[in-house]
Parts: sequence; C-alpha cells; structure tokens
Amino acid sequence: MYSFLNNEFLPAEKTLVHVSDLAVQRGYGIFDFFKTINGKIPFFDNYLDRFYRSAEFMHLPVTLSRDELKKVVFELLKKNGATDAGIKMVLTGGYSPDGYEIATPNLIITQHALTMPSPKVLEQGVKIITHEFRREMPMVKSINYTTGVWLQQKVKAANAYDVLYHLNGEVSEFPRCNLFVVKADGAMVTPQAHVLEGITRKNILSMQRVIACKVTLEDVLLAREVFLTSTTKRAVPIVQVNDMRIGTGKPGPVVQQVLEELLNREVL
Amino acid sequence: MYSFLNNEFLPAEKTLVHVSDLAVQRGYGIFDFFKTINGKIPFFDNYLDRFYRSAEFMHLPVTLSRDELKKVVFELLKKNGATDAGIKMVLTGGYSPDGYEIATPNLIITQHALTMPSPKVLEQGVKIITHEFRREMPMVKSINYTTGVWLQQKVKAANAYDVLYHLNGEVSEFPRCNLFVVKADGAMVTPQAHVLEGITRKNILSMQRVIACKVTLEDVLLAREVFLTSTTKRAVPIVQVNDMRIGTGKPGPVVQQVLEELLNREVL
Repeated sequence: MYSFLNNEFLPAEKTLVHVSDLAVQRGYGIFDFFKTINGKIPFFDNYLDRFYRSAEFMHLPVTLSRDELKKVVFELLKKNGATDAGIKMVLTGGYSPDGYEIATPNLIITQHALTMPSPKVLEQGVKIITHEFRREMPMVKSINYTTGVWLQQKVKAANAYDVLYHLNGEVSEFPRCNLFVVKADGAMVTPQAHVLEGITRKNILSMQRVIACKVTLEDVLLAREVFLTSTTKRAVPIVQVNDMRIGTGKPGPVVQQVLEELLNREVL
Repeated sequence: MYSFLNNEFLPAEKTLVHVSDLAVQRGYGIFDFFKTINGKIPFFDNYLDRFYRSAEFMHLPVTLSRDELKKVVFELLKKNGATDAGIKMVLTGGYSPDGYEIATPNLIITQHALTMPSPKVLEQGVKIITHEFRREMPMVKSINYTTGVWLQQKVKAANAYDVLYHLNGEVSEFPRCNLFVVKADGAMVTPQAHVLEGITRKNILSMQRVIACKVTLEDVLLAREVFLTSTTKRAVPIVQVNDMRIGTGKPGPVVQQVLEELLNREVL
C-alpha cells in the first residue's frame, strides 16, 4: 500500500511527518474524505470544492492545483490496485519553527479500507446519545475532533452508535455525520446552521423535499423518523435517542428511500 | 540537539511520527510546557501534575511514571547541554487503526530556545484585541489551538500582541496566556471559570491578594491595570484593548511588582 506526502508516493508505513508539524503541536489542519466505487469517485468535485474551501479559510495554501490533485488521487488508486476504498486528504499547518505560526502545509493522502454499516444496523436502526456541545468552526472540515474522540468512551459505555450535539435546545450534527428528521407531520428537516455541509447531506437536499432550518431536540424526540448521513455511512436509521424510542422504534420508509436514491446516484 | 520519542532519544530532526497518529488525523492530544533556568526547572511538580491530569482526563495513559519522566527530561537537558531552554512534552492519541479511536499514545519531548518578551514590551506595554470565543475544554491542556492559530493573521493585521477571548460579556483567557485585571478600586481579579489554570497564574494567586471570579469585558476596559501571564511571558502589561487605552496608557506598578516576585520565585 502506498500513501502520498507532498510530492511523492511512499510506502504507507513509511509516511511520516516531523513532530514540529502544527497538527502535532496545535491540532491545526483540515482534511476531506471520499470513497471510490469501481474505481470511480462519486461527487469528487464536491469533495474537492470543500477541501480547497476549508484550506483557504484556514489560511493553508494547497500547492497542487485541482487537476494535479485529481491526478495524484487516481495515481494512488492505480498504485494500490483497489477499486472500492476510502481516500483521506489531510492538509496540516506544516513544520512551524515556533510551534504556533502556520508554515508550509504538509499534504498527506492515504487510502483506507471502507467499513460500511452492517446489514443489522440498517435493518434494526441504531441508538444514539446526546451531548451539549457545538463545534467551534463547524463549516470547516478541520481536523479538530477533540470532543468527538473524547466522547467515544461515553458512546461505547451507552452501547450507542453515535452522539448528537445540541446547544440551548437546538441540535446541530454528529461529530462526523449530519442529521435528518422526518417530523410527525411528514416534513423532512435538517439543521441549517452550526453544521458541516456534508456532501451526502447536500445530495439529499437536492433530491428530496427537505427544509434546512433550525431543528430542536424536541423535534428529534417527537419525530416519525430520524437518520444520520455521511460519506461512509450513507443513511443510517436512528430508532432510539438516549432512553427514548423514536417513532415506531423501527426504521421507517423515508430513510430506506433516501438510501436507495443515494446508492443510485453513486453509480451514475 | 536531541528529542525524546516514547522510549528513545533521537536527533531532533529525525523525530518523526507516522501520519496515522490521532494528532494528525483528529488533532487529539495533550501537552505541557515549562522552562529551565540554570539547569533547574521552577515549579516542575506543578507542570507534571497538570500533564498527568490532562492525560487522564483525555483518556491517554502515560507509560512513564513521574520519576521516569523527570529523569528523561533531565537526561535530555544534559544531552543538549542547555541551561536555559523551554521543554515541551506532547502526548498524542497514538497510531489509530481506524483514525478515530484512541490507541497507544506517543510521548514526544522536545527542547526549544526561549524567546522572552523584549525590554520594549515590558517598558511600553502592549496592545491586544478581543475575539468572541470560548475554548471547548479550557481546563485541559489539549493541543487544540484551531481558533488561536487561525486568529494569528487577525492579531498581526491589528498590530497586536495577543487576542483575548470573551463570551456574553465575560472574559476568560488568551489562547496561551491568563488574564489579570487591577480594577479602578485597586482590587486585583482573574477569571475563575473557562480558563486553563496556568502555573504562573497559580503562583500569582498564591502570592498576591487576588480574587478569582467572573471578570467582564467592561472590567477590562475600565481597569487601572491589565496584564497577561504565561510560563514564557511571565507578566506582560497591556495598555490598549482594541482601540481603547487602558488606565494611563502606560504599564502600572502592580504588574511590575508581580513580575519581580515571579522572577524571585523562579530562582528559589
């Protein structure tokens, strides 16, 4: 397996960075993640748009042009001979002489095995827990997952699948997923503010009659259907929030329909 | 120059970590920083207390005992032959197979040249700016400085020395420093909540009649004296906040007295 670092392909296990990198020193960097299916990358341009947008916002110049970056990703896939995989591109703050100022970013591209939700998860739905929190820069795909990683112990202890952030009664997102709610009256909503604009979320917004608006914790608890979305997970039905059952306690028809449409779009 | 990684001393430039480290992938880790003066480390036990406390809170086991860690630090100083230096200990989330779960932490110890505030800074005082923000886990010395590093561009554009966080009218801290305010009536206060408990702050609290309490942005703007504190900076007078002059616009007697006492304590 190969990875890519700045301007060269390296054996994955030899892809190292110096400890002065601002990611190690200050947790500073951005990333993006997408998957390949049969050697194609669904919605690749959307991911690249977001990657360059995150980089610009965080004052991190990308030395590779969009075309060069695309070429590197396909070259990596070719070298690794994989058809279905996850690709992660990380852009760090670089080797900072004083450990605080942004330097020349390091671009790291790695390939990963995809672990999709199990059939059981899709058939039975999952339990989630909630946590009072809002990410500091939700619109940017920064590498800062301090609270998300820290909460994993709590998620596991509760035998939950994920954790939903909320603040002042308003829900936002999961550490790595977006939220969709089918309200009791049938309206489908997703939080508009304080969220990362997921590419899967964007896809669902474009295909379904969904309203991006303020969504409350009460909306979630009283919902007919709730589900989370991400590139890897696509759409996963949520049937329990903390100790509360959602809807019938079983995955509903809307998430099933969304999932089918996502699968169709991926192979277009 | 040598650094230390997990269980070995390495040439500083060869101290590398694999890109799968959770610091690179998710900005997850903790650290601490202290200085050596004439080969001694003032308040070393306070820094170690905080390091182990941060590690425990963040679910990161430290494989070295306190005595072993002390021994490594003094060995590093000896190898590098420095008497006055800064030492940084970083403990990362380790090489995470799935890029999200905490693995075996990497312990990185590096030595740095100390850059203290210039005489001009101490004589004339500095300007700071303000930013509406509160860190997500202020009590833990995590490596997450996303907002602090990101703000550096704004700090420089304003020709400022640092940036003070506030939320809902309440001030908390600087990205890397604590705040002290001498109010118009002479009372000295420092924010009690939502701050990292700096070792210099702790020292000042123990020697001066200071009240740790809620401090407002108004308290700062109407203050007789304002100063910031940190291990490297000790106590730096603040004479301007955004476009507002503080007190007489010159460093006052209290910060001078605090600085002298800090210097005395360091060489005890």
